[in-house]
Amino acid sequence: MQYIIIAIGDELLAGQVTDTNSGSIARILEPHGWELKRVEVIADTAEALHEALDRALSEVKVVLTTGGLGPTKDDQTKQTLCRLFGGKLREDPEVLENVKQVISRRNLHLNELTARQALVPDNARIIQNEVGTAPILWFERPEDKVVVCMPGVPFETVQMMEKRVAAELIKRFPEKDILVRHTVMAFDISESALAQILSDWEDSLPSFAHLAYLPKPGIIRLRLDGRGPESIRPKMEHLRKELIALIPAENFLADGDVTIEEQLLRLLTERKLTVSTAESCTGGTIASRLCSIPGASAAMKGSVVAYSNEVKASVLGVNAADIEAHGAVSESVVEQMAAGIRHLTNSDLAVATSGIAGPGGATEGKPVGTVWIATASAAGVKSRCYHFPGTRDRVIDRAATAALIALFRELSELNER
Amino acid sequence: MQYIIIAIGDELLAGQVTDTNSGSIARILEPHGWELKRVEVIADTAEALHEALDRALSEVKVVLTTGGLGPTKDDQTKQTLCRLFGGKLREDPEVLENVKQVISRRNLHLNELTARQALVPDNARIIQNEVGTAPILWFERPEDKVVVCMPGVPFETVQMMEKRVAAELIKRFPEKDILVRHTVMAFDISESALAQILSDWEDSLPSFAHLAYLPKPGIIRLRLDGRGPESIRPKMEHLRKELIALIPAENFLADGDVTIEEQLLRLLTERKLTVSTAESCTGGTIASRLCSIPGASAAMKGSVVAYSNEVKASVLGVNAADIEAHGAVSESVVEQMAAGIRHLTNSDLAVATSGIAGPGGATEGKPVGTVWIATASAAGVKSRCYHFPGTRDRVIDRAATAALIALFRELSELNER
Repeated sequence: MQYIIIAIGDELLAGQVTDTNSGSIARILEPHGWELKRVEVIADTAEALHEALDRALSEVKVVLTTGGLGPTKDDQTKQTLCRLFGGKLREDPEVLENVKQVISRRNLHLNELTARQALVPDNARIIQNEVGTAPILWFERPEDKVVVCMPGVPFETVQMMEKRVAAELIKRFPEKDILVRHTVMAFDISESALAQILSDWEDSLPSFAHLAYLPKPGIIRLRLDGRGPESIRPKMEHLRKELIALIPAENFLADGDVTIEEQLLRLLTERKLTVSTAESCTGGTIASRLCSIPGASAAMKGSVVAYSNEVKASVLGVNAADIEAHGAVSESVVEQMAAGIRHLTNSDLAVATSGIAGPGGATEGKPVGTVWIATASAAGVKSRCYHFPGTRDRVIDRAATAALIALFRELSELNER
Repeated sequence: MQYIIIAIGDELLAGQVTDTNSGSIARILEPHGWELKRVEVIADTAEALHEALDRALSEVKVVLTTGGLGPTKDDQTKQTLCRLFGGKLREDPEVLENVKQVISRRNLHLNELTARQALVPDNARIIQNEVGTAPILWFERPEDKVVVCMPGVPFETVQMMEKRVAAELIKRFPEKDILVRHTVMAFDISESALAQILSDWEDSLPSFAHLAYLPKPGIIRLRLDGRGPESIRPKMEHLRKELIALIPAENFLADGDVTIEEQLLRLLTERKLTVSTAESCTGGTIASRLCSIPGASAAMKGSVVAYSNEVKASVLGVNAADIEAHGAVSESVVEQMAAGIRHLTNSDLAVATSGIAGPGGATEGKPVGTVWIATASAAGVKSRCYHFPGTRDRVIDRAATAALIALFRELSELNER
């Protein structure tokens, strides 16, 4: 099923807010075989909406809009929808009740909101917004077409797509085929090297199956999609196992669509092992990525961001003479940082980073992007020097990913003993 | 000057990649008075490009495209442009030379790339891509219209807009008026309270000036824009001073468009003061936000992410009996964390967080979103209990912002003594 998204918002066109809603909606509908044909980001005017809706409805059967309906806006969008689709605004008591419930959890002015939010086009089916005040408006149009108007607040759009709207759309336009998706994660291998290993297998895939490579720095997501009758399900399961078997063992990260931090924490928790980080140039990024995962406390002991050399010495126990002799960005110092945090937090594994994120800070022989990364475990301390390209935030981000990869590798090797 | 952006990319429509380029371009051109009329995100097909370009050129004089030209793509987009604009592909020796230089800095295969990247439509003006391989193509079209085709890689798009393309566009379509922009940051006040304070002043603004409120959690960016002849410049300077004077002193963050972490580090560095953080639920996010700012090392000593109670006690010196009696998420524990990290790193200021980010972890009387935040300085230790709504990542993000605000407030109060 092809569809178009119209994202309404002056703040989008001013570059103040990035449109993340169309991507979120696309990711939710895509596994069901729905194909986003186009996104239009338009101004919050009646004319722009009219023009965009007319155009979209001439091309596809389903149009989703985001934004343009909100407690601080006038009801211009709703009036435009009435004009276009021939309805009248009426007060909906259920919407009124829902608004009262939602805002009783927040500290907002009841009267201004209720009057506006409860007015809805009388020819729209209302889907109550469970996490916000603007109701979702579902319009059935001639020629079996549907227009659904969603809130603009990303949290509300995603929640309501996941809770109600996606299911309603799929029910309204059922696919004959089933869609099966398997995702496998690989790491520490280039896309071209992996493509070469999988080349013959990929060429011999049955016509109902397709492999996509979705690389990010350090990680490759392999997405195996199948589309066809129910009989493809066991065949897809077989293909998944074949794919996993083809990935070199030292490059296999996970069976399933997970991030490296999720997989690392999962394995640590399963094996009742703990981890800590000692960070200089990454400034706490590795720790915050790990701690962003629910349940991290089972495995994550803590971190020290030793941004000054003083703290490297006094808190992590790094030898001040070594910092003086080799500099903070050195094998000796980063290894002592890793051993130090492991000892300080009594964790099983530890990783440390020390580098030059830029733009300043480069020294003789150590350009911007030079980052030493060390791991410490019962098997000892190892380190490696990396060179990351790009601006400060890219160096930090890549160094954090490389550190998580190094931890993962150390954990895998521990397991083999 | 009105313009339209066409973002080309299947990965955008699949929701794999978010279109940040249109927002970046809008933010770069908007201060020059350029108004983005619409963004279309389209599939990487000749048909979609043809249709979108035709439509856009019928509405505005300037169309910018992003994506569709890249070393791993075939030259479909370039061929479509030739068909549409009547040129032929030719090999450009300067582009060839540029590609060789760019990729000599990376580890890519020279031959595959050069053959394709150096082929350009012969009726396009070439702007060399200084940070990537795909050249920028500038087409002069009938009726004083311009189409500029930019790379899709965000780093390259932003860099080349900032280095060359924006200036070329502004030179090609000069504005008669000047544009003056002043930005002032306020914090720890609601948008409606601030709007009420500024209401009379805003109503009496001269017609050439306009005030916009751009709120984010905890922070309000006030943007004062003026458009007119050169004579408005001193008047805008006067209005800027009036605006700053109207903001309550305890809510004034900065004169200029800066983040709270930038402003905090700037003031700390000016006053030769240092800072440290002790983080539990925020997991290193406060530290990583501070360390993301170039020059942070002048003021940032370091942090301890005390994710386990063990580390709170052993590294930060929190009394284990207090953790037992009151729980980690308590006034007693968070104040000891703040005092502990200040002492451990010997910093002038410190902030600590301890809370429940969710989705699990709520206890009797402490729902998800409960976060204690404490500051420590020469003036003593203070703390406050917050309740942040939303999912885990939103609680963490808001708690980190609240902690930076608390640090900023403590610094301001220190200064008054």
